[in-house]
Amino acid sequence: MLFPEGVSVDGRTGEVSPATDRYTKTLADLRGFFRDSAKLDEMVATQGEVPVYEVIGYRKAESDLSFGTTIMSPGKVGDEYFMTRGHFHVRRDRGEVYYTQSGEGLLLLESRDGDTRVVEMKPGICAFIPPDWAHRSINTGPEKLVFTWFCATDAGHEYGEIQERGMRKLVVDRGGEPFVAANPNFAER
Amino acid sequence: MLFPEGVSVDGRTGEVSPATDRYTKTLADLRGFFRDSAKLDEMVATQGEVPVYEVIGYRKAESDLSFGTTIMSPGKVGDEYFMTRGHFHVRRDRGEVYYTQSGEGLLLLESRDGDTRVVEMKPGICAFIPPDWAHRSINTGPEKLVFTWFCATDAGHEYGEIQERGMRKLVVDRGGEPFVAANPNFAER
Repeated sequence: MLFPEGVSVDGRTGEVSPATDRYTKTLADLRGFFRDSAKLDEMVATQGEVPVYEVIGYRKAESDLSFGTTIMSPGKVGDEYFMTRGHFHVRRDRGEVYYTQSGEGLLLLESRDGDTRVVEMKPGICAFIPPDWAHRSINTGPEKLVFTWFCATDAGHEYGEIQERGMRKLVVDRGGEPFVAANPNFAER
Repeated sequence: MLFPEGVSVDGRTGEVSPATDRYTKTLADLRGFFRDSAKLDEMVATQGEVPVYEVIGYRKAESDLSFGTTIMSPGKVGDEYFMTRGHFHVRRDRGEVYYTQSGEGLLLLESRDGDTRVVEMKPGICAFIPPDWAHRSINTGPEKLVFTWFCATDAGHEYGEIQERGMRKLVVDRGGEPFVAANPNFAER
């Protein structure tokens, strides 16, 4: 039987306590996701293990609803801001909500038929992610971007499609401001 | 088709923008929920429409996940703090998460077999409400209690059982501190 619990979520550090799971993705883990892969290789060679983001979860198999935080480092690969891999949910009827706690960024979304939307991530904004929209978080600021996510436990993550073909848009630094550009490497399947 | 959207959630006022629905419960609406009904009647007679809490929602029928805020006034009926009606979900496999934004309170929970739990509500705490636990929020502080809730859209609210029989415990002011007491009016069905 599941019992109620108060779970501490630190909006600055993103720490979740108690948590059930956590993982970190480093630059080396994200080979293939950034446009400038030579630059990424160079950064990995010279800087070693660079954490791009960490995910801390509070998930109980018997609960329909899970939550947790994502903590994104500031940084860029060339002119492309640090970002998450991006994913659809396996269950196409499952959406998600991202509540930004600190930092600033953009949430890049793509529907199954190729429509793109961008939602600003900043403290106090709940980004509503409808079912069946792929979503990728991008840290466009100089500080950590920390957000809390809320999602059906059975949603499932499908990373393969975005990994293989990319997203139609990417977010780059143009003179110090984020700019949503066409992705030259996007491969229509 | 549903589109992504950034929804502003003000952690101080509880305002949600854009919102899809909102309602307010006044003291008069909450007749029968507080232990001291004579006191409640007197307050309604002398103070008129006293808002106890307001709920503002962002719900889309085609989205599995809804969210919103509850804004609770500070106050008491006799020694019993202002509280929400309390409810189970119609769907017994649906839980909820309450993220406190400002203020302080207690979340009183009761399982189907009569187990009671209390979770502290304060900024930075995500209260995890497992499926099939009745839950009632109680503002034990001098300020507004504002929290953001996240819940399956199809969970449904079942208020009748708590309204008829009460909860086994109630939270009263004992010398300026919240105290969880047995409810003398609790009626086992």
